[in-house]
Amino acid sequence: MTAAPELRDWTASFARRTRALGGGEITAILALAGATDVITFSGGFPDPATFPRDVLGEIAGRLVAQDVAVALQYSQTEGLPSLRDYLAGRLEVLQGRRPAAGELMVTSGGIDCMELVAKSLVDPGDPVVVEAPSYLGAIMAFRGYEADLHGVPMDDDGLRPKVLYTIPDHQNPTGLSLAHERRPALVELARRYRFLILEDVAYRELGFDGTAPPSLWSLAPDVVIQTGTFSKTFFPGVRLGWAAAPPEVIAQLVTAKQNSDQCSGALGQRMLEEYGRGGHLDRQLVASRALYARRAELMGKALAEHMPDGTGWTTPRGGFFTWVTAPDGIDAVALSPTASARKVAYVPGRPFYPGDGGVSQLRLAYSRVEDDLINEGARRLGDVFRAGLEKA
Amino acid sequence: MTAAPELRDWTASFARRTRALGGGEITAILALAGATDVITFSGGFPDPATFPRDVLGEIAGRLVAQDVAVALQYSQTEGLPSLRDYLAGRLEVLQGRRPAAGELMVTSGGIDCMELVAKSLVDPGDPVVVEAPSYLGAIMAFRGYEADLHGVPMDDDGLRPKVLYTIPDHQNPTGLSLAHERRPALVELARRYRFLILEDVAYRELGFDGTAPPSLWSLAPDVVIQTGTFSKTFFPGVRLGWAAAPPEVIAQLVTAKQNSDQCSGALGQRMLEEYGRGGHLDRQLVASRALYARRAELMGKALAEHMPDGTGWTTPRGGFFTWVTAPDGIDAVALSPTASARKVAYVPGRPFYPGDGGVSQLRLAYSRVEDDLINEGARRLGDVFRAGLEKA
Repeated sequence: MTAAPELRDWTASFARRTRALGGGEITAILALAGATDVITFSGGFPDPATFPRDVLGEIAGRLVAQDVAVALQYSQTEGLPSLRDYLAGRLEVLQGRRPAAGELMVTSGGIDCMELVAKSLVDPGDPVVVEAPSYLGAIMAFRGYEADLHGVPMDDDGLRPKVLYTIPDHQNPTGLSLAHERRPALVELARRYRFLILEDVAYRELGFDGTAPPSLWSLAPDVVIQTGTFSKTFFPGVRLGWAAAPPEVIAQLVTAKQNSDQCSGALGQRMLEEYGRGGHLDRQLVASRALYARRAELMGKALAEHMPDGTGWTTPRGGFFTWVTAPDGIDAVALSPTASARKVAYVPGRPFYPGDGGVSQLRLAYSRVEDDLINEGARRLGDVFRAGLEKA
Repeated sequence: MTAAPELRDWTASFARRTRALGGGEITAILALAGATDVITFSGGFPDPATFPRDVLGEIAGRLVAQDVAVALQYSQTEGLPSLRDYLAGRLEVLQGRRPAAGELMVTSGGIDCMELVAKSLVDPGDPVVVEAPSYLGAIMAFRGYEADLHGVPMDDDGLRPKVLYTIPDHQNPTGLSLAHERRPALVELARRYRFLILEDVAYRELGFDGTAPPSLWSLAPDVVIQTGTFSKTFFPGVRLGWAAAPPEVIAQLVTAKQNSDQCSGALGQRMLEEYGRGGHLDRQLVASRALYARRAELMGKALAEHMPDGTGWTTPRGGFFTWVTAPDGIDAVALSPTASARKVAYVPGRPFYPGDGGVSQLRLAYSRVEDDLINEGARRLGDVFRAGLEKA
């Protein structure tokens, strides 16, 4: 029997919620990042130079030889107890609060936590507030559950959101941080109007001077879900992060995780634990901060040298990103093919906004571009944008 | 400011779809499985004796030393190209069909694929058909997206499902397989009535005699999504599996995966590839089949010796499970605490049914119980059920 031609295309069968999604923007970004001859300021990749080549081989070999029944087996859905114990101690040291029983779980990277939060809390049409611009992965995770997305400034519309998503430290994509004095006010707002804050601390430990204001979770563990990732600090090739939140929320996220990937990989969990308890993670962070601080500085200098007059950009004090605002008339999406032809890549600003915005803006990730290519990359970008301005 | 007491409980904020979920049955099973003094026939865990202790340490050490930029970095969402190439070749050898371009992706275990399929294809109220009984994880994944779940026999109700989920080889929980001659008929039904088959091949390569009838996907790649896992064959501690499906379906699953965990861990992907290309996986499978065949035989003998008259059970020819039907009057859920007190664990049959059913049934996983404990475990079970019958 031969199937009728219309059988060959299943797109009409896709669920309604998938229509809310864009065209896989991050997938496209990651695909581009694989090209070797392009100076890519696009994906937020850590530099492999920061990855733990030295001790990790020994740790991996030892776990495989001596710890198979734990490290190679299924883990509890909420993560291995020994890793959660290590993480709890680490949060106590870094954020001044140790999670209580039931408040902490291990996730498969930060994005896994956004997905679990969206699935567990967001009904279609529920209002969710994000910074505008904000992390593309979070915007897409909430859109996938048909949230009614709103960009801040949140006090403008008097909306009571169900969830407010924020990256208080060295934000993606802008590189900016929430001022210390605004933090208590934000969590009090959440308490008063009874909404949850989803605090993404992906870049918190990568402040160039090693300091950070109090985390929102440490200020108000009753209204904050903190999501952290080890993809920027340890390495992304094991998918590991954490969620810290009120116990009933963690219990719900654990149930959702059971149906998503069951558990994060036990081998990676044990590797992280051994590596961290050995003091190696703290040493790695010192080296990573120095590397990214140097690149941020090179990026700023290169932009000053090459970008056309009227261009503005942020000066990050941590993290992976500089956020560029080009003069009016520039459309960063429309210029992407020109940039691609000049072998330089960036992410246009538009997808980082839940609604309109960002037409003349772009995100530059300096995190994985070799020092001596940053200036050349900015030179090419400057040419592309100058040509764009002349046309406009 | 002190938060009002009602602020302390967020359960009222949970999304509607989460109310369709049961009480984290699998989470509870995994928690039980951690107890050391219980003979546990519950979780479908592979035996750590099958895990690759010997070569894997060397492979892990080498990748960490020489392959950091790939093995420790983010992977493409659809999986590393080199691993997909290896998997495509493996499917060609084992199932007689090589996936075409765009038809294959890497997933974080089998459960990740169920989640992606449910999210990508199931609108609330969409009819989904599963075997009754069927794999708890799949039932819960579909429930999480508010599918209208129906148990087979599907020809009884004339329903046109959107998705039919089946485990044709050594099914979970029954251990039974779909007969060779019924397979072409099933895929023709899917073609005629235009529904997708989600074919779960978790235990396919663990047939005790090493053979298997044609996979549904190899018979009809135009209407079948095949989900496979390496948790039963390689090891579960890296979360790895695959999906093979029509290209537009894979593209949609990749978009969904971008928002769930972004990508499966690159380190595990590279380890699996090196291990597989080195021929080790095939050797591991030979040893695993022999181990599980022996345990299945011991299980059958022990049940014959100890279970009360009127009890029936399946005789699996592969996989991890024997499915027991106790005499009427037995409630396997109600007897769980008694079994627990006698230090023996099983999974009651009820949650494996999408609707009613399975009251007097239970699943026994012999996969991770030491040979010399199987008889003792069955003896305890027999006592528990005999006592239950006397009460009934």
